[in-house]
Amino acid sequence: MASPTVKLNSGYDMPLCGFGLWKVSNDTCADTVYNAIKAGYRLLDGACDYGNEKECGEGVARAIKDGLVKREELFIVSKLWQTFHDVDRVEPITRRQLADWQVDYFDLFLIHFPVALEYVDPSVRYPPGWHYDGDKEIRWSKTTNQETWGAMEGLVEKGLARSIGVSNYQAQTLYDTLKYAKIRPATLQIELHPYLQQVELVKLAKHEGIVVTAYSSFGPTGFIELDMDNAKTAAPLMEHDAIKAMAAKHNKTPAQILLRWATQQGLAVIPKTGRPAVMLQNLDCFNFDLDEEDNKRIAKMELNLKFNKPTNYFPADNLWIFG
Amino acid sequence: MASPTVKLNSGYDMPLCGFGLWKVSNDTCADTVYNAIKAGYRLLDGACDYGNEKECGEGVARAIKDGLVKREELFIVSKLWQTFHDVDRVEPITRRQLADWQVDYFDLFLIHFPVALEYVDPSVRYPPGWHYDGDKEIRWSKTTNQETWGAMEGLVEKGLARSIGVSNYQAQTLYDTLKYAKIRPATLQIELHPYLQQVELVKLAKHEGIVVTAYSSFGPTGFIELDMDNAKTAAPLMEHDAIKAMAAKHNKTPAQILLRWATQQGLAVIPKTGRPAVMLQNLDCFNFDLDEEDNKRIAKMELNLKFNKPTNYFPADNLWIFG
Repeated sequence: MASPTVKLNSGYDMPLCGFGLWKVSNDTCADTVYNAIKAGYRLLDGACDYGNEKECGEGVARAIKDGLVKREELFIVSKLWQTFHDVDRVEPITRRQLADWQVDYFDLFLIHFPVALEYVDPSVRYPPGWHYDGDKEIRWSKTTNQETWGAMEGLVEKGLARSIGVSNYQAQTLYDTLKYAKIRPATLQIELHPYLQQVELVKLAKHEGIVVTAYSSFGPTGFIELDMDNAKTAAPLMEHDAIKAMAAKHNKTPAQILLRWATQQGLAVIPKTGRPAVMLQNLDCFNFDLDEEDNKRIAKMELNLKFNKPTNYFPADNLWIFG
Repeated sequence: MASPTVKLNSGYDMPLCGFGLWKVSNDTCADTVYNAIKAGYRLLDGACDYGNEKECGEGVARAIKDGLVKREELFIVSKLWQTFHDVDRVEPITRRQLADWQVDYFDLFLIHFPVALEYVDPSVRYPPGWHYDGDKEIRWSKTTNQETWGAMEGLVEKGLARSIGVSNYQAQTLYDTLKYAKIRPATLQIELHPYLQQVELVKLAKHEGIVVTAYSSFGPTGFIELDMDNAKTAAPLMEHDAIKAMAAKHNKTPAQILLRWATQQGLAVIPKTGRPAVMLQNLDCFNFDLDEEDNKRIAKMELNLKFNKPTNYFPADNLWIFG
């Protein structure tokens, strides 16, 4: 099974269904990446902050060595953490991340959040997280989004990234980026599920030729393990009556319904699972269609409920970046 | 009666309750401004886009001539429209707006929206609105928020504005501004009422020493006359059972409850009315306090419902600036 692809504004083709690597533990990560590739995934969505890029690289290397796939058949995505937004830090950390992945270019490299924090040397702590020295202090950097984007463009010029994009950008941040970008963002990766449908931001991105990747397609489920209060009070999407009814109607899993709702809109998805059978199911989210009634029902589920907010992780700190 | 003031980060004092001039019609505007000053209002909140600054100036001039007030006792606020974001357009349009007001400085001048549109000559159309040539075409300018902010700082250096600030900024836009600002925004003016409480954005602004001005304190009421669908379906705040019960309990009007809910949080407000008796009532929103039960009840009214969105005015166009 293979995912259909979408043509990015950079000219490259990106698989619409990839494999997400957030919260994949270090001890299982290499095997998980290997199994995902074996199941047919070609897009791997990683990040410095996930703390497992070295193990991702081991899984990729083993898959290539075993002849499952060639490097050029993979679409490897990673992200710039905010402690590396200062212009002179972007290229060195990208090179380190490439070394962890054991590859010499990323297919897509994203600004993880439009926030700049003071540099933390990777030899001191890696991944660095939000707080300076790992404690409760937030130290901002004065580097602007425009300056960091310029450094991201430098990665393309040097061949370290084929496409560049952004993540967790609000509409206004995207508008400003489009004014100064010499290379336009190829993708926008945002939290998006029936409880947070992002209708207007998706329209904006589509109008500007930017592909949207939806993360956390299963909604609160991915956040319960983080002990997040609003994830525990929201009804799990997989067990939502409307989603279960659609799953029964189409003879699919609830997860496939949630993924198809996104891909049918032209959104890319990056589900995660440790189970090979579910890997195959999740990748199979293209060969059926939700009908108008299904889509109308899901449209009514909007709660404007965002889980992946820094204030949800660190309620005591000054991190209202989506406020 | 006089409003208490708040000290801005620029060193100037700003009245916490001012008079808002949006949608004040040209034929009544001079009298309304005159009556508001007579009722005790010292802050007048105008904008190029309101299309009535000349009449505002006439009301101010008459009030000064009649000895009701001196210029230095007034706090005059205006706003830069987005067709004047190009750096060389900022000072000339500010001088024109000052001439309309018949004053030689603004106490506070705000960026109305963090959006830049192609210049429209005031002799062709004024106020210019969103669409180039008044038709359905949106023409963006490439001028960045940073460039426009630099021009706003120039107004302070030239004495044309004592304080400068921003309006309708999302959190990320504010974070980026704080990186490049040589003069920090003194205020952030945003839609804020019980259906859109902006809790995190208010926390961010307070933490950064920026005073928040709440506009549309009465929620949907101000938007019904604009024939806006979601304003007509939301329950009017003035007639909301909880607000009416608080009004009865405190022996105040529902409007006073809504205004006090904001001022008690340290937010500035800018209510509008054409009736002199209501002008007095609205200004009287400081000498009582909502109790904990009241505030808890209002907290539960949050709907995340924004009325003043360009997409609500122009649903067919590409104006997802809050997406």
